[in-house]
Amino acid sequence: MGEEKNKSFQLSCPAPLSGHATIQLAHGSGGKLTGELIQSLFLKYFDNELLRPLEDQARLTLAGTRLAFTTDSYVVDPIFFPGGDIGELAVNGTINDLCMCGARPLYLSAGLIIEEGLAVSDLERIIHSMSRAAANSNVVIVTGDTKVVDRGKADRIFINTAGIGLIEHDYCFSAAGLRAGDKILVSGNIASHGIAIIAQREDLGLQTPIASDTASLLPLVNSLVTTYGAGIHAMRDATRGGIAAILNEFAASSQVAIRISEAAIPIAPPVAAACELLGFDPLHVANEGVMVVAVSPEFADTALEQMRRHPLGENASLLASVESCDRAVVTLRTRFGTERFVDLPVGEQLPRIC
Amino acid sequence: MGEEKNKSFQLSCPAPLSGHATIQLAHGSGGKLTGELIQSLFLKYFDNELLRPLEDQARLTLAGTRLAFTTDSYVVDPIFFPGGDIGELAVNGTINDLCMCGARPLYLSAGLIIEEGLAVSDLERIIHSMSRAAANSNVVIVTGDTKVVDRGKADRIFINTAGIGLIEHDYCFSAAGLRAGDKILVSGNIASHGIAIIAQREDLGLQTPIASDTASLLPLVNSLVTTYGAGIHAMRDATRGGIAAILNEFAASSQVAIRISEAAIPIAPPVAAACELLGFDPLHVANEGVMVVAVSPEFADTALEQMRRHPLGENASLLASVESCDRAVVTLRTRFGTERFVDLPVGEQLPRIC
Repeated sequence: MGEEKNKSFQLSCPAPLSGHATIQLAHGSGGKLTGELIQSLFLKYFDNELLRPLEDQARLTLAGTRLAFTTDSYVVDPIFFPGGDIGELAVNGTINDLCMCGARPLYLSAGLIIEEGLAVSDLERIIHSMSRAAANSNVVIVTGDTKVVDRGKADRIFINTAGIGLIEHDYCFSAAGLRAGDKILVSGNIASHGIAIIAQREDLGLQTPIASDTASLLPLVNSLVTTYGAGIHAMRDATRGGIAAILNEFAASSQVAIRISEAAIPIAPPVAAACELLGFDPLHVANEGVMVVAVSPEFADTALEQMRRHPLGENASLLASVESCDRAVVTLRTRFGTERFVDLPVGEQLPRIC
Repeated sequence: MGEEKNKSFQLSCPAPLSGHATIQLAHGSGGKLTGELIQSLFLKYFDNELLRPLEDQARLTLAGTRLAFTTDSYVVDPIFFPGGDIGELAVNGTINDLCMCGARPLYLSAGLIIEEGLAVSDLERIIHSMSRAAANSNVVIVTGDTKVVDRGKADRIFINTAGIGLIEHDYCFSAAGLRAGDKILVSGNIASHGIAIIAQREDLGLQTPIASDTASLLPLVNSLVTTYGAGIHAMRDATRGGIAAILNEFAASSQVAIRISEAAIPIAPPVAAACELLGFDPLHVANEGVMVVAVSPEFADTALEQMRRHPLGENASLLASVESCDRAVVTLRTRFGTERFVDLPVGEQLPRIC
């Protein structure tokens, strides 16, 4: 499965770094340039069978114990925003990456890079927020590191969290696991996180303040995995690159076509309005508490109902269908009945979103 | 043991953050202010029994499997320096943190924060260096993350590595494990890393170029653990804060006095000269491939011989003795027969050394 995914990824990214001599913001976007960077540098030098599947977490077996292991750095600007802050994001993001393969998140590390001059009260607020988020998901922060860099050499605070989870079942949820006929559910309103950040950063002064959707998806995942087990084929939280990036990865890894119905995209009206205003495609905007789940068709309706009954899935929707195809694509059927391709984001419209 | 250490640490750090309203460079020094930050924020909010021992790695048991888990962020400036680069440092540093508890390092994560505009060729050089360092110690990089921040919001590249190792024995090497009578060995010439960095950064134009000591200490640790097992009471690589920080931590955690003999401090003459010139105490300067080991007195001579026969321990020396005391202290007996206290570094003389 890893092999297959890797191959399809390479086919779509033939040109190493597209000839860029320097790193661009878009190399961190989760879109096309990120894929090229991964292929032309990270897989070239680090290649091994555990990294190769390029899921959001590595799955390891140590002395007979099956683990998930993941890392993410958070550089969000601003560090405090409606609905959350960098600390909560750093903890919940890593919890989400662990639970997307069905692992039970247990232990986190925290690596802080702080710019000289950060207010101690701001740091305390962030640490407090990390501790609350960890406690909410029953994980503990067991090891850490703090570096301080001189003023002007970082931006207030960057946080890395790595995490270990225990895999206690034999299900294999994977981007390469989709089959023709599968239905893809989305757990909630999309694009709220990205728009909350940009509205705060650019001081858009929206009439209705928009809050980030940042959340630990663990309770919702637990509920679904317990009920549907192997009926779930893939799960992924739709962070950088948004729904479009995840579905393109699913399509490429599984060599299927994914057809989104525009009418089924859940989005809060003020977020939709802000996207319109700013010229963003909501499918490209980052979420921090929204997941997509590909399930066997026979479970689609009941899984959707179950999601909607859950506080984290009130706005869940049956977003897309999976079809067999000659070519891995993601398309959108618009409200007007036309169909268009949904590509990976190419540039970086929203840097430092997480 | 964690409890005890914690207590002694608190006694020496009564004032939360010494009244600082903002984060200072010295909060990242590995010295007194780092200790205050850990006590007044991290232990306050994250407190749990796995974090509390404050070793360089957490020791976990998952489904019967014993693991070590650690994290470090690297912000060294410059990113390339005589003897190494940030990539090698990030991999070897985490390998060293894992093996200091006797764990076998197995899996690493890599979280990169890159400043827009970094040359792709520099990034490739760093990634190549990480891959070589990992291969040398038989570890694999299994998961990663890349963020790019806008120009001027980071300094070229920061790298976080977290690591997992397997603990396959019952020895407990710990800062709290020293006993009166123990001897403390140091594996090699001290202060080379810090001086190599500062000489390069400040373009000191030293006549004899000084190379960093960056190295994976794994082969030396394996050799010692295999031979001496429970005869080893504590091991630690002497990074930020130097030998002085580690020995103060050992003394406080074990409630003992540690007496260093100045004549036994191994240091290369050009490094000693540079320290003299710059006004640095070599005991406070960071190392990246030097460890201190506390052993039972009956093993001191043979362990020292074994270290000296190893390529990583050619300049090993019997640095200090452990004595019982009313008060945890580290002292230095000078070449003139006088004795002085060796304190934790208070300020930050060498920021961004690792």
